[in-house]
Amino acid sequence: MLKKIINGTLLLPDGDSFRAGQADLFIRDGKIAGIGTDLSAAGTANDAAGENRPDEPCEVIDASGQLIMPGLINMHTHAYMTSMRNYADDVDFQEWLFGRITPVEDRLPKEGAYWTSLLACMEMLRTGTTSFVDMHMFHEQSARAADAAGMRAWIGRGLVGDSLYADDNPRFREAMEEMDAWQSDRLHFILSPHAIYTCSLHMLEQVVEESERRHMLRQTHLSESLTEIENCRAQYGGRSPVEVMRDVGFLSDHTILAHCVQLDEKDVSILAESGSSVVTNPASNAKLGNGFAPVTAMRESGINITLGTDGTASNNTLNMFREMGLLSLIHKGICRDSTAAPASFVVSCATTHAARALHEEGRLGVIREGAWADLAFLDLNAVSLFPNNNILSSLCYSANGSEVDSVMVAGEFAFRHGEYPGIDSEKVHFEVQKIVEEYL
Amino acid sequence: MLKKIINGTLLLPDGDSFRAGQADLFIRDGKIAGIGTDLSAAGTANDAAGENRPDEPCEVIDASGQLIMPGLINMHTHAYMTSMRNYADDVDFQEWLFGRITPVEDRLPKEGAYWTSLLACMEMLRTGTTSFVDMHMFHEQSARAADAAGMRAWIGRGLVGDSLYADDNPRFREAMEEMDAWQSDRLHFILSPHAIYTCSLHMLEQVVEESERRHMLRQTHLSESLTEIENCRAQYGGRSPVEVMRDVGFLSDHTILAHCVQLDEKDVSILAESGSSVVTNPASNAKLGNGFAPVTAMRESGINITLGTDGTASNNTLNMFREMGLLSLIHKGICRDSTAAPASFVVSCATTHAARALHEEGRLGVIREGAWADLAFLDLNAVSLFPNNNILSSLCYSANGSEVDSVMVAGEFAFRHGEYPGIDSEKVHFEVQKIVEEYL
Repeated sequence: MLKKIINGTLLLPDGDSFRAGQADLFIRDGKIAGIGTDLSAAGTANDAAGENRPDEPCEVIDASGQLIMPGLINMHTHAYMTSMRNYADDVDFQEWLFGRITPVEDRLPKEGAYWTSLLACMEMLRTGTTSFVDMHMFHEQSARAADAAGMRAWIGRGLVGDSLYADDNPRFREAMEEMDAWQSDRLHFILSPHAIYTCSLHMLEQVVEESERRHMLRQTHLSESLTEIENCRAQYGGRSPVEVMRDVGFLSDHTILAHCVQLDEKDVSILAESGSSVVTNPASNAKLGNGFAPVTAMRESGINITLGTDGTASNNTLNMFREMGLLSLIHKGICRDSTAAPASFVVSCATTHAARALHEEGRLGVIREGAWADLAFLDLNAVSLFPNNNILSSLCYSANGSEVDSVMVAGEFAFRHGEYPGIDSEKVHFEVQKIVEEYL
Repeated sequence: MLKKIINGTLLLPDGDSFRAGQADLFIRDGKIAGIGTDLSAAGTANDAAGENRPDEPCEVIDASGQLIMPGLINMHTHAYMTSMRNYADDVDFQEWLFGRITPVEDRLPKEGAYWTSLLACMEMLRTGTTSFVDMHMFHEQSARAADAAGMRAWIGRGLVGDSLYADDNPRFREAMEEMDAWQSDRLHFILSPHAIYTCSLHMLEQVVEESERRHMLRQTHLSESLTEIENCRAQYGGRSPVEVMRDVGFLSDHTILAHCVQLDEKDVSILAESGSSVVTNPASNAKLGNGFAPVTAMRESGINITLGTDGTASNNTLNMFREMGLLSLIHKGICRDSTAAPASFVVSCATTHAARALHEEGRLGVIREGAWADLAFLDLNAVSLFPNNNILSSLCYSANGSEVDSVMVAGEFAFRHGEYPGIDSEKVHFEVQKIVEEYL
């Protein structure tokens, strides 16, 4: 059925930035079928959608007082981690990972990861995120949760070890076997070797081969901590993690690299030349004491920069609005420059840049004809946004995420006026609480 | 009338930190009259309140599923600035101040400042703030707004010039004359010379005399930008702003200093020795390109550190939860230390440290018998806080402010379930929109 969204303010593309526009939005088959003004009559609406179907029924959605923006794209998270939200803070990184997080992960049952991933989806939808890129131990549960929540996701099984095909390392084989069962228009598999310090070079080369043969995206964690850099240089003849990844052929325009905090100038040049996309995770990198990624240098070099929250165990929220504000404020502070990391750049990181990294440019992260109708509806009268002097500034500097009233993915509401049509919230709370009591 | 709050989780003091406790809370005459368990009978309740009034009526408030915490104290803001929210961003500091902000300030009518200050109160209450410290051109309007909103405030007329008593500088005289009309249990006057670059040393000495004679607190902006430091050293024989303030006698335990970003080691020692309190404003300092205050060094020196948002023109929100998260994340990132600026410190900055700076220790920013019943009620089932693994981490790292369901000041609800008993929200929106259209 045709959907027509009227009376809203649209966040439309405008060159490399955005502009606010007043127009009606038409949605058919999950996609934006037309954008126009003075199209109040259904017949005209159908014309705007590029077809002439005068008898087609049309659902009208009134978005008075609302901003309709592209749904945000969280480019790096570990959805299942929500049971460990606020569980291990203000402790040393080694204690955090090996003393607190890993022991719980190892105990957590698969079914539990479904419920904790669903809680992650609830928080992401609540704060305007429509797509996420995930990597972890429970990829099938994460995919089932994203499916139930009505979200779009790129999900990978975290791979570690010496060989993709080792008999004692069934993760890759299992992932390939299961993949067909859950891939869809909304759900995609992404090859996800964990990190340079948990995968052999041989295995990384195998990942490159597989991803090129299958035309798949690949992602990894890269250059997150100083320890990673030191160990890598010691192990691989003085080369940085970026250099090693270049040498095994991992870097390409199908490559997504999370963190990239500890980069020198040479690393930045290599990444820029490779066409790889970077996911910066300002909250997680700061919170774990890894520092601040060289976002300004990466931006000047032309690297495609996207934004992610990382998991709740290190953030401790999946709120992309908090992350957008942090990205800008931290880099203005570091550069002592109030014009650094401006709002237009930050909102692009969370929308159009992410679409470029996912090879969905023009189809995702943008309001235009032919794009998926993945939309967030924000209340412009919310006390944090009012008065509406500048829409982009609002999104970057004063929004806290609670202004999101509704969220649509592929033309269907996944969150509407505080409710989740696809999720039994009480059941999620009950199941997650049970996991906390049993395993934490 | 006695009020009894039942079934909530209380954030109670625990040495220098906090602990969660299950207890009933009794409120009489605006203050906490008792805290106890197993006090469900009204008679026992009255005993807990330290008196025996078996016939006293008692209103019972059910706080099931809620955290009851001390209301947050925003130690530095300019409430009237909300009309300029998201109005001048991503521009150079000089352009921001002199090209965008000052011209609007000069045009704004007094009555307009009442409505914009009331909008500020709405945002602060919405996000759990019960008290604020203000300084600006419209102190009377700010006081009227705080009064209408039911908030607690310390408000000062921003003073500039060569002498407090100059005939062509009526601000101080006017402020003193008007003060008695609006001071109350909730509203206090604070002497507020604007800054070292807008006040003569002679006038600063007069402020010290007046504040000591009247036993009044004093505040100023200090060491915010590098330009301020350079100009001060050039004008005052190489002395830093902190040194100049020490030399005129401004620094004392009745002194509140906003910003303090550009400090050297000597400045930190001087501040520590003086007993002055500092207000750090991480969002504003970063956003205007002034950088990051040396919070860790100040903390180690024993300086009493408090937290503020600054005005919406430079933040661009008055959300203390955003500010608490920023404070911790930024300093963990700078120090490359995941244990820096821990949650207990951050929550203290926004509560008990602020009370100490205001000479209200034990009466404000804490849940204990005899303290004002200034409380924020948070929904522990909010998707950003759940599961509740650690209350302090929740407040510092995952809350976005929208979890606040209700706020009480001196035992009366100023915000309840999304409504403001003292404020006509629609009228505020209407009046602020009119100001935007006429003056921006």
